[in-house]
Amino acid sequence: MKTRAAVAFEAKKPLEIVELDLEGPKDGEVLVEIMATGICHTDAYTLDGLDSEGLFPSVLGHEGAGIVREVGKGVTSVKPGDHVIPLYTPECRQCKSCLSGKTNLCTAIRATQGKGVMPDGTSRFSYKGQTIFHYMGCSTFSNFTVLPEISVAKIREDAPFDKSCYIGCGVTTGVGAVTNTAKVEAGDNIIVFGLGGIGLNVLQAARMVGANKIIGVDINNDKEEWGRKYGMTHFVNPNEIEGDIVQHLVELTDGGAEYTFDCTGNTVVMRQALEACHRGWGVSIVIGVAEAGKEIATRPFQLVTGRVWKGTAFGGAKGRTDVPKIVDWYMNGKIEIDSMITHTLTLEEINKGFDLMHEGKSIRSVVVY
Amino acid sequence: MKTRAAVAFEAKKPLEIVELDLEGPKDGEVLVEIMATGICHTDAYTLDGLDSEGLFPSVLGHEGAGIVREVGKGVTSVKPGDHVIPLYTPECRQCKSCLSGKTNLCTAIRATQGKGVMPDGTSRFSYKGQTIFHYMGCSTFSNFTVLPEISVAKIREDAPFDKSCYIGCGVTTGVGAVTNTAKVEAGDNIIVFGLGGIGLNVLQAARMVGANKIIGVDINNDKEEWGRKYGMTHFVNPNEIEGDIVQHLVELTDGGAEYTFDCTGNTVVMRQALEACHRGWGVSIVIGVAEAGKEIATRPFQLVTGRVWKGTAFGGAKGRTDVPKIVDWYMNGKIEIDSMITHTLTLEEINKGFDLMHEGKSIRSVVVY
Repeated sequence: MKTRAAVAFEAKKPLEIVELDLEGPKDGEVLVEIMATGICHTDAYTLDGLDSEGLFPSVLGHEGAGIVREVGKGVTSVKPGDHVIPLYTPECRQCKSCLSGKTNLCTAIRATQGKGVMPDGTSRFSYKGQTIFHYMGCSTFSNFTVLPEISVAKIREDAPFDKSCYIGCGVTTGVGAVTNTAKVEAGDNIIVFGLGGIGLNVLQAARMVGANKIIGVDINNDKEEWGRKYGMTHFVNPNEIEGDIVQHLVELTDGGAEYTFDCTGNTVVMRQALEACHRGWGVSIVIGVAEAGKEIATRPFQLVTGRVWKGTAFGGAKGRTDVPKIVDWYMNGKIEIDSMITHTLTLEEINKGFDLMHEGKSIRSVVVY
Repeated sequence: MKTRAAVAFEAKKPLEIVELDLEGPKDGEVLVEIMATGICHTDAYTLDGLDSEGLFPSVLGHEGAGIVREVGKGVTSVKPGDHVIPLYTPECRQCKSCLSGKTNLCTAIRATQGKGVMPDGTSRFSYKGQTIFHYMGCSTFSNFTVLPEISVAKIREDAPFDKSCYIGCGVTTGVGAVTNTAKVEAGDNIIVFGLGGIGLNVLQAARMVGANKIIGVDINNDKEEWGRKYGMTHFVNPNEIEGDIVQHLVELTDGGAEYTFDCTGNTVVMRQALEACHRGWGVSIVIGVAEAGKEIATRPFQLVTGRVWKGTAFGGAKGRTDVPKIVDWYMNGKIEIDSMITHTLTLEEINKGFDLMHEGKSIRSVVVY
């Protein structure tokens, strides 16, 4: 079949809207009509050539929502007509990782996904006979895409695609960091470093679970208004306080926060986030992706006196299990998404979405097919 | 009253055995006759002048066992005749830390303990009218010492002092790291870096809880025999393997260990310990105390892919609650101590104990009064 897609033919070039050839789903795969997709920093990171493992030409995009149109042999968990969110972190429920019950980092198809192909080692996309690679196992910048069955979460049918697509990455990453990785409890004090889309989702999840002080830290004062919309109780601009930011935050939280979250990707900030944790039990969670080669550091005394350093990917969410729950939270009004979707674009306007993001003018731009 | 004690009059000098004046216990304090005391690396660290906060003149020693001889006003939890282990980490059960249920790092008397005095701000020890400081709230290198009530753990009376004293620091630090901090489960693979006294206690606790592979790592081959006595199933000398030690350990544990423990104090080893953890859920625990100014570092990717970096002090043990349990484990044969006590000395021989430790000739030397 044919599908309209925005293709990254090479790094550092705008995406090109073309018609691709798409093979139908093989065994254990599903064909999904993508109805909407968000544009995420990770797509830009790859398109800008910063990801040393980035493959071209490829169909980027990993934050989508759509409808199953066809299923391959042996597919039992979804059927044509089901509404789904593609998962860049699959959930096979059979590998050592899934069965451990301790992680969401399913390893069933990690090797092939990293190589831009389906589990059988081939791509379903081609353009004039040339192979086009899949991306993060999703490729949502194509109106139709093929995914492994274990890489789609079935969701309720009344959720609007142009909002629920954001749950495919940003919302789940921020909300899940609070509910799955940290397991923030009512009354805890939390600090979020970096109030971009992920940071805002951390804030609103902390509000949802009843956190006490919900502190946002950003060097851009324009973020204060955004933060307060999603439950932030205190705003701190490190450039506008006297003295040390860590000391300031420790005092503001009467000894340090129960949980801190780095949403900046800056390794210096990651250290501040750890050290702003409460002695004895504070946990700092790295969400942001750091530049290649950068390292985090601290004195081991910080750990010996009870602070814990951990990280999270896709908010610790088991995709097929947890993503439908987050869709429920959205539909039930426990979390907000609508106000975070600052721009809605057509596929033809997708490069404008990247520009808006680079210019810091959007929280989330969504392409609607 | 008078007490015989080994006094550290100044750093880098041998201890001197003298007769000190000792004031009786004030409100909330107890007088304890120390029956035996271990000599720990931390005592040597202070005596060698490496602890920038070390105070002199002082009575060192923090790993003892003895009998309550007198109690001050308001003391209710112990009475004369009770057998106790002094606690350098007290347990007041009333401060924010104790009430959190999340840490053993009681803060009730932290400030005064760090200044070498009792909670009222004064010392009970003096020599010819000169104040002699307490050390770590214990000062077990004195035949009699005064401690706050919250700094003694009441233990069973059939436990031999010359063995149970080791539970006052080394045993609890190693065993507790496994049972309290890591909470190792049956079937887990664990790796211990550094097979000194703490490392051996980590090994035997891992054996006690049913760990699967119990791997010891040390650059000294003589440690292999010691390690195997306490449950070590595999020995690795990093200098004798080909290639990278982390890669070697990850292969040996089929993807990395559930828990790793640094008992070296070497920050390079601490990084290896983290990176030898299993992707998705491995937890690395820093036990060793690093040199002043040294920092630990890693790529944040290690955390984002599910490894956790934490630390432990006094094995995460709440002293008054957990130390009596560890004494029970020893008395019930669940853990060994006797074979770790390599030398038993008189107080007059205490400097020999430090020499043996510096020369690496002892696991633990114990002074019996």
